[in-house]
Amino acid sequence: MTMGFDIREQDAQTAARTGRLHTPHGMVETPAFMPVGTRGAVKGLTPEQVRATGAQIVLANTYHLLLRPGIDAVEQLGGLHRLMAWDGPILTDSGGFQVFSLQSLRRVGEDGVWFASHIDGAPLELNAAAAIEAQNRLGADIIMCFDECPALPCSTEALTAAVDRTIRWAEACKQAHRRDDQMLFGIVQGGTDAEQRARCARALVAMAFDGYAIGGLSVGEDPAERNATVGVTAPLLPVDKPRYLMGVGTPMDILAAVEAGVDMFDCVLPTRNGRNAYAFTRQGPVRLRNTAHSQDDGPIEPGCDCYACRRFTRAALRHFFNVGEMIGPILVSWHNLRFYQRWMAEIREHIDRGDFAAWAARQRELNEDMTQAGFDDTSDAAPRLSERKETQT
Amino acid sequence: MTMGFDIREQDAQTAARTGRLHTPHGMVETPAFMPVGTRGAVKGLTPEQVRATGAQIVLANTYHLLLRPGIDAVEQLGGLHRLMAWDGPILTDSGGFQVFSLQSLRRVGEDGVWFASHIDGAPLELNAAAAIEAQNRLGADIIMCFDECPALPCSTEALTAAVDRTIRWAEACKQAHRRDDQMLFGIVQGGTDAEQRARCARALVAMAFDGYAIGGLSVGEDPAERNATVGVTAPLLPVDKPRYLMGVGTPMDILAAVEAGVDMFDCVLPTRNGRNAYAFTRQGPVRLRNTAHSQDDGPIEPGCDCYACRRFTRAALRHFFNVGEMIGPILVSWHNLRFYQRWMAEIREHIDRGDFAAWAARQRELNEDMTQAGFDDTSDAAPRLSERKETQT
Repeated sequence: MTMGFDIREQDAQTAARTGRLHTPHGMVETPAFMPVGTRGAVKGLTPEQVRATGAQIVLANTYHLLLRPGIDAVEQLGGLHRLMAWDGPILTDSGGFQVFSLQSLRRVGEDGVWFASHIDGAPLELNAAAAIEAQNRLGADIIMCFDECPALPCSTEALTAAVDRTIRWAEACKQAHRRDDQMLFGIVQGGTDAEQRARCARALVAMAFDGYAIGGLSVGEDPAERNATVGVTAPLLPVDKPRYLMGVGTPMDILAAVEAGVDMFDCVLPTRNGRNAYAFTRQGPVRLRNTAHSQDDGPIEPGCDCYACRRFTRAALRHFFNVGEMIGPILVSWHNLRFYQRWMAEIREHIDRGDFAAWAARQRELNEDMTQAGFDDTSDAAPRLSERKETQT
Repeated sequence: MTMGFDIREQDAQTAARTGRLHTPHGMVETPAFMPVGTRGAVKGLTPEQVRATGAQIVLANTYHLLLRPGIDAVEQLGGLHRLMAWDGPILTDSGGFQVFSLQSLRRVGEDGVWFASHIDGAPLELNAAAAIEAQNRLGADIIMCFDECPALPCSTEALTAAVDRTIRWAEACKQAHRRDDQMLFGIVQGGTDAEQRARCARALVAMAFDGYAIGGLSVGEDPAERNATVGVTAPLLPVDKPRYLMGVGTPMDILAAVEAGVDMFDCVLPTRNGRNAYAFTRQGPVRLRNTAHSQDDGPIEPGCDCYACRRFTRAALRHFFNVGEMIGPILVSWHNLRFYQRWMAEIREHIDRGDFAAWAARQRELNEDMTQAGFDDTSDAAPRLSERKETQT
């Protein structure tokens, strides 16, 4: 199969499944986590290192690439794979999320969005046709529809209008799409409103996309609402197509979504937290700037097979953060990405083995048992505003 | 041989020679270039990547490690090799250079130097015994005597006093040295004054060190003076011991010093310039922020076998610098370190082959022929002050 999706194992007790996503640049085992390469690079790591974490697909942001270096520049260079020096599968988002989250918006119209560049304030327009044309020219393996992603909480009127536009724009994206070597995914919006989600999902499914994303989450709602929304939305999507939960999330968020039948994920947490000296481990978060690590000759996470854990002590990593050596952020980003890939591999293993539901329940218990903080507690790793803007996806 | 130096080939027309430096952590082919890992890390690169450039030995700075994380911390961790996760040979300097170049000095006395920490202003003292004790405890394969390195130009009186102290402190260092698994090198001072250099060299040679460094250069003198000083100093040092020119320099400086019989070099230029988007190539410097590269799908340097050149276009690297992605500085530092290692390998090859003098002359011609700038022109790559202080060796 050159392009498409096949399911390997369907869990008996949950909606979880393992599968294979086939793209022109290779196969991706699902459930899959995609490291975020916002502006054509996963922050701090070479593509070789990203590959070494176990990543089989990466994400890049059309919005950021549109501004710099520009679509023309990427195209003239031979496309996004060449720019990134990544020869595996790539997914690009449509730019919709950034336009709605990052910008001082000028105006949302029925046909698109007018906004000011966050770099120099230049007036720009993005709409369905332009977002698809840009993605056709960037040349990722999987591209996304242009959608409206409202911040939550959001009034019923605004939510309804956003879903209306998202549906209309999805139709326009489908018609604008010109390349048969790129899969086009629709994006379900609807906030935390189950009826709006259902309405959006039905409309998109009728258009027969190559895959479906659940968008509009991780934008202000609490985790319980998020999980509930994923739980009601995923079953509305065709069982034989890949499902992608955009911008989510913590390891436990991912686990819940896999149980609901989601196949693909992306999130900046592993790299963003890594740059802030926050390491994910199965024993809970490790904050490497902490004085407690100053004489610790153990690895970030015992048993982890990543380069940082195999070669460096916590004391050394603390020192590198303390003196501002780049290798600190590099190594902890590496570890965190490997942590996420190990997590996904373990999820896939238990689905294939048939004991996923019990294993997932046990993970939830373990997470709740962690005394100080679950391994989802990222409260101390909040980035400075400048970083947050820079790394938003 | 566990520890020591043997000469492989002696050039017939110049003082150049190839050799092997044997250390407890492995062998180093000379003439050798040592990447600088000031605070326990070569900036931006993992030890694995440093190794991939061809480096066989790295340098770290006692002064910086003394302040953070502190000698106790490194020792408790199991030593500098463990901190750095570098299992090859390491050379540490004594801290003398930083004390004299980086600090608001408090007082130079006959027995040592009192100064304020550049981190928090804390009063500190460094002297021969303390510098050797620190280096014994850090555990590098090669350690350096504590010397006085005056800025140039410098009065005859000050220079004489500095050489006097350097000689007296060298004797004290030799007596303080406690480990027989570390080679101790003496450092010849004397500015650009041939008589002072000769006086210092004679005194140190009489003390029978494991190797000899030429210090006190790259501190304000012009390149012709520098080369002349190396030319008169190197022949005064024992032919059967390794000779190390500290903190020098450009590829052409290194070539001149090799002709004078120098075996070892260190310099921050490849990494510092790399972080500033300045790439060394045999065709002259490439400034990767330049608009000229925005559509250039060629590598930094045609024919270079480094990871950056094998995988990335100049256009992509320009983009990464333009948007501030860490991977820009990482990749150009990598290329520059590989450039230096290729340069050293080529030097060794021509010495071994017996055509070194002719090849070196040709390199000098080529360098002078380069129209815009020789590959030693680093004028555009001047770092900001904060970076200069941070990276000073």
